[in-house]
Amino acid sequence: MMYLDHAAATPVDPKVLSAMLPYFSDDFYNPSAPYAPAITVRRAYEAAKSDMGRAIGAKSDEIIMTAGATESINLAFSSVGGHIVTGNVEHHAVLGAAKQFEHTLVAADERGLVSAASVKAAIRPDTRLVSVALANNELGTIQPLRDIAEVVRKERNARLARGDRTPIYLHSDASQGVGQLDVNVARLGLDMVTLNAAKVYGPKQVGLLWAAPHVQLSAQLHGGGQERGIRSGTENVAGAIGFAKALELAVAHRRFESDRLAKLRDALEKELLDAFPQAIVSGHHKHRLSGHLHISFPKLDAERVLFALEARDVLVATGSACAANKGTRSHVLTAIGLKPEVADGSLRMTLGHLSDDNNIARAAICIIEEVTREYERMAV
Amino acid sequence: MMYLDHAAATPVDPKVLSAMLPYFSDDFYNPSAPYAPAITVRRAYEAAKSDMGRAIGAKSDEIIMTAGATESINLAFSSVGGHIVTGNVEHHAVLGAAKQFEHTLVAADERGLVSAASVKAAIRPDTRLVSVALANNELGTIQPLRDIAEVVRKERNARLARGDRTPIYLHSDASQGVGQLDVNVARLGLDMVTLNAAKVYGPKQVGLLWAAPHVQLSAQLHGGGQERGIRSGTENVAGAIGFAKALELAVAHRRFESDRLAKLRDALEKELLDAFPQAIVSGHHKHRLSGHLHISFPKLDAERVLFALEARDVLVATGSACAANKGTRSHVLTAIGLKPEVADGSLRMTLGHLSDDNNIARAAICIIEEVTREYERMAV
Repeated sequence: MMYLDHAAATPVDPKVLSAMLPYFSDDFYNPSAPYAPAITVRRAYEAAKSDMGRAIGAKSDEIIMTAGATESINLAFSSVGGHIVTGNVEHHAVLGAAKQFEHTLVAADERGLVSAASVKAAIRPDTRLVSVALANNELGTIQPLRDIAEVVRKERNARLARGDRTPIYLHSDASQGVGQLDVNVARLGLDMVTLNAAKVYGPKQVGLLWAAPHVQLSAQLHGGGQERGIRSGTENVAGAIGFAKALELAVAHRRFESDRLAKLRDALEKELLDAFPQAIVSGHHKHRLSGHLHISFPKLDAERVLFALEARDVLVATGSACAANKGTRSHVLTAIGLKPEVADGSLRMTLGHLSDDNNIARAAICIIEEVTREYERMAV
Repeated sequence: MMYLDHAAATPVDPKVLSAMLPYFSDDFYNPSAPYAPAITVRRAYEAAKSDMGRAIGAKSDEIIMTAGATESINLAFSSVGGHIVTGNVEHHAVLGAAKQFEHTLVAADERGLVSAASVKAAIRPDTRLVSVALANNELGTIQPLRDIAEVVRKERNARLARGDRTPIYLHSDASQGVGQLDVNVARLGLDMVTLNAAKVYGPKQVGLLWAAPHVQLSAQLHGGGQERGIRSGTENVAGAIGFAKALELAVAHRRFESDRLAKLRDALEKELLDAFPQAIVSGHHKHRLSGHLHISFPKLDAERVLFALEARDVLVATGSACAANKGTRSHVLTAIGLKPEVADGSLRMTLGHLSDDNNIARAAICIIEEVTREYERMAV
């Protein structure tokens, strides 16, 4: 199998699964129970949260565990409310959460970049939240978060200077980037960050929301009072421990893996562009996740190619998994101004742990053959 | 280890874990992706939902998967809103969710029973939701759901007869009972039911909300549109498959296990009452979960006994795990009118898969010795 859809899902790393396993059937105790074996479980859970915090330069007690990125984003948005500024190329989870509030969608440029200037222009006096992903999940474009943070900081200071106490926070969904980029919340200037284990070889439905101490979160789920009362429900101990391990591995191998994937991706990109000079690579050429390759073959029916490739054990995407399933055109490709006949010929290939020289070279051959075959079919 | 706290947490059944394992690192694909291996995962996920539906006499597409019971309850409550009637002995998740709305707490009787008559008396013209757990998590008392359903049905019909279209639904958190009782949603007359994998030897943070087709749910988590748009987020495939397996096993062994636990529990109860005639067993004598034994030793400090027992590898609870952790007196024991000096001497023992003749007999000896020692210490 040549798997080129790591942005949609990643296999749980064997080391992650090993770390999780004891917490299913052996150390299964309710972390809120008072006896020693449960306290041991509680400590392991808290240690996992500390480890996750360390991976992003944050403290354990600033982290709320959630069931994946979507819940984390919804918790961030519903806690802050007010007018929200976000990009028109954001993931459906961010757009869906933003739609619950008054919001302005900032237009990304043709590379999928949400500029600090465009964010600045969209901020209103009642804006309380700016949310920009660390990297776009379809194009891989890395957003200028530090510049955006500077805009938010200046707006905050300007408000304080005029005695306006309306807060403004910067949130980032870093789910898609944390495997390849350094996510230090202080260095990036973030107030809130969303992470997702399932994108970094951890388990599905495990995520977190980090919020700086000055951000007041409010509970969406009420009950037993876990996670400082912000997110009730018996803790997903195995999930948290798996997530911590996944983040630890991601941080440890980040530079090596990022370089490795960039080389593989660049080779694949070159082969495809050499074979099809008319093909268009989208996303920021320089500021792009190293595993991402978004390429459009004008006038091609990408879905036909996808299924032809599937028959040859090459798994690629035509868009993000959610949108793909609905059979609608990707909002990201529309947002960056790809014409329909270009957008509909798009393949997203995302490399990762399962990619190596060998299977990427084989995948390139298959893709070239199937795209050629499809162009020939159309020419008939 | 003599584990007598199955109501707080259960170990994942090895068969459940086996069923889950392939979905971590092998069949890890995003169920929304379009290629065949992902469609296989999607089918396995849907089959798991069908199996869960079958276990409660419901259809797969009436089930929304959630991250545990707390989210399921919050989803039910926030979907229906309006005035809510529930019991004062309900789990914190129900009470916490109810507090977000106008609500009336029905007083349970001294056995922890919420009678149909008391529910009837609390229903107002604007009541939209009645929520009563299948069984109380502290006392094990099984609630008269069918009688309560009849009250709700009559109220609904009375409203319709007078042209009032205000809906009224009956929700039940059946997390604590489904391992030992038949939960057929039609037979019980329910409109919504909450289940939790972690209480039936499945994984933590996996739950579901079943809602009859006439109940309109509204999303709490917005995003990719999974679970018919009601609950976005990439699906917890391994979790759902584990939950389905856990429910299948629970249903298959329910009668046998229920009889087995009742015999063990009755023996333990008899030994403790023989040794301490002053002890008080709470909960409904007849309508009680077969694994539950709630016993109070007047004037005893139950926490001291708990820790003494822990040192001898006997794990019991003094209340529900959430409340225990906060060091506050159980609201359930207050609700049923136990005097503080009786309530504070309470131990909750909940039997389950890890209980057998041998370890229950040994546990009984340890409990009798430690309670005796504590009474002797106090007498000095």
